[in-house]
Amino acid sequence: MASVDETAVFLHKQWNGKIETTSKAPVRNREDLSIAYTPGVAAPCRIIAEDSEEAYNYTLKANTVAVVSDGSAVLGLGNIGPLAGLPVMEGKCVLFKEFGGVNAFPIVLSTQDPDEIVAAVKAIAPTFGGINLEDISAPRCFEIEERLKQELDIPVFHDDQHGTAIVVLAGIINSLKVVKKDKEACKVVVNGAGSAGVAITKLLLTYGFKDVTMCDRQGIIGPDYPDLNWMQKEMTKVTNLSHKTGTLADALVGADIFVGVSAPGIVSKEMVASMAKDSILFAMANPTPEIMPDEAKSAGARVVGTGRSDFPNQVNNVVAFPGIFRGALEARATAITEEMKLAAAETIASLVDDEQLCDDFILPEAFDPRVPVAVANAIKALV
Amino acid sequence: MASVDETAVFLHKQWNGKIETTSKAPVRNREDLSIAYTPGVAAPCRIIAEDSEEAYNYTLKANTVAVVSDGSAVLGLGNIGPLAGLPVMEGKCVLFKEFGGVNAFPIVLSTQDPDEIVAAVKAIAPTFGGINLEDISAPRCFEIEERLKQELDIPVFHDDQHGTAIVVLAGIINSLKVVKKDKEACKVVVNGAGSAGVAITKLLLTYGFKDVTMCDRQGIIGPDYPDLNWMQKEMTKVTNLSHKTGTLADALVGADIFVGVSAPGIVSKEMVASMAKDSILFAMANPTPEIMPDEAKSAGARVVGTGRSDFPNQVNNVVAFPGIFRGALEARATAITEEMKLAAAETIASLVDDEQLCDDFILPEAFDPRVPVAVANAIKALV
Repeated sequence: MASVDETAVFLHKQWNGKIETTSKAPVRNREDLSIAYTPGVAAPCRIIAEDSEEAYNYTLKANTVAVVSDGSAVLGLGNIGPLAGLPVMEGKCVLFKEFGGVNAFPIVLSTQDPDEIVAAVKAIAPTFGGINLEDISAPRCFEIEERLKQELDIPVFHDDQHGTAIVVLAGIINSLKVVKKDKEACKVVVNGAGSAGVAITKLLLTYGFKDVTMCDRQGIIGPDYPDLNWMQKEMTKVTNLSHKTGTLADALVGADIFVGVSAPGIVSKEMVASMAKDSILFAMANPTPEIMPDEAKSAGARVVGTGRSDFPNQVNNVVAFPGIFRGALEARATAITEEMKLAAAETIASLVDDEQLCDDFILPEAFDPRVPVAVANAIKALV
Repeated sequence: MASVDETAVFLHKQWNGKIETTSKAPVRNREDLSIAYTPGVAAPCRIIAEDSEEAYNYTLKANTVAVVSDGSAVLGLGNIGPLAGLPVMEGKCVLFKEFGGVNAFPIVLSTQDPDEIVAAVKAIAPTFGGINLEDISAPRCFEIEERLKQELDIPVFHDDQHGTAIVVLAGIINSLKVVKKDKEACKVVVNGAGSAGVAITKLLLTYGFKDVTMCDRQGIIGPDYPDLNWMQKEMTKVTNLSHKTGTLADALVGADIFVGVSAPGIVSKEMVASMAKDSILFAMANPTPEIMPDEAKSAGARVVGTGRSDFPNQVNNVVAFPGIFRGALEARATAITEEMKLAAAETIASLVDDEQLCDDFILPEAFDPRVPVAVANAIKALV
């Protein structure tokens, strides 16, 4: 049997583009043409010229998202550039449409300069009802997203940050129910201080966790950690308030929750054994987790999640972003707020029924059809 | 019965976007997901990272065009802005797909500054196999197109200029067969010195017409015409070589061919009567021509074309751009050359069979299925 890679190469060549544009308007004869194009098209144009809000009633803007990337941090492949990142962006567009009913179009950029990226996204924004940023490296992604949020009146959402953070939080909410611990009393360690690690930490703090410590390649992050970028420096003001120093292993002693968005195999069984009783681990390095679930369990972990679909508790952004944009577009939200992110996480968590909830079932399935609808409704309720 | 305008408004509201994005890749289960998205998608990404040309084999770039506008010159509606222009761009995308099998996506821009437009189109170009500029006002359109052609390695084509010019030339080629005149001996008057008028004039000269005079609101254009823009000044070097001055009426005395891309009703029966025997008129002001066909005929014109589908000899760009981009994309052309434009015009003209060709049948029908195929093949033969 062909491997996943072989099958993917074969099918991508056959598809030659996973997304196509399709017409909803028939053009079988002159009459059709005169409606979909000239002269009839002038009538909706005039209506929008009078009131630009009408674009939401007469054009694709109402239900279309741009999936924007500069190809600087594509999957685990790194800075492979816009063209090599395009299959991922097309895949994201497929998920937007199939899971959320949202039209999405990939826009890969020939520049990796933040000023130029901001200018380009602002320039093309009128077509779209929302902007999904994707696979843009940290710390550039923080600045780019923040500037676009300030300058655009449509939602801007960096999924690698917030989608991941929302699903991790949903998993943690349910994990805490399983282990019967309280968020205020939990000691959390987030390993990896890139886009996802920063966003996860921020959302956990917003949700109400008090004791969060970030680590990166050189151990515990604090004011004296070398070469912090501006965002990581910001994070030192709200994390590791007791100013610990040391290694990841030091940080994990007595910790209740580990969240890894870092590198394969860097958590040992000894480290897990040093954590508090009923520990929770989200080991999301791809494709190989920070520690394999069976090892973590044998070392004493209670709940283990990964990014993989072949283990229990997959952290999969597809339970978040399609519904989030579906709801934001339907309600014409101008931004995805912190409140909405919390609501999305709580909604996703709530879709695991009490009788299902257990160590190995803390997140709804990616294909659970209730998910995008429930998430969209949660977002809409806050617009 | 509802008017065209009423029907168009009703249907545009119902469609809420004439173009949608559709997935070619199924995502019904985890296996599908692992092919269309992670981890399988990494395999084609790696192939493209090795050789960027492979993007044409594995992504939508191979067959996708951006329809780009700043909304500065939309139909006859003027500078109505990007959002109000969006229904037109969506309509153009529909025609690309339905007539040429080319995926097309509308990109309307929040800026009308040429530098910013060039920067934005360059930034988003990696996604696309070609750029169709649309409804950008003159003389900005000339500079924007020229700069993009120089800086991008994919075809850039301003359809209001070249699409129109190609179809007009096709019509003139066949008209000359009907009236049995020779291009070198013909006196041509082009009225309207905007994007279409300039492009038509250039293409007629490239084709071999020797005596072309341009007119605009204040009459015959020559070195002393007031307030010429830089492109119109360029045109004074190759048109009106005998340095005539005067009105449009003066220009038309003895002329063989009139091409109007100007304003309704500005050509009188007297002016037509003053033209040479067997005169040819393309009166393309929309929706009301420079002179109505019956009036022109009664004043002595032999062949009359307009932009309208309810008269014979409609000049409709849809016989050109879908096939042009179809051919350019299939052959991976890096530009649409002058040679290709001439070949497209000659091919379109050739699709009117000798037994059909007459005063009232000089251009193939918009729905003639041979057209896009033949035009595409003509383009491909020149790559």
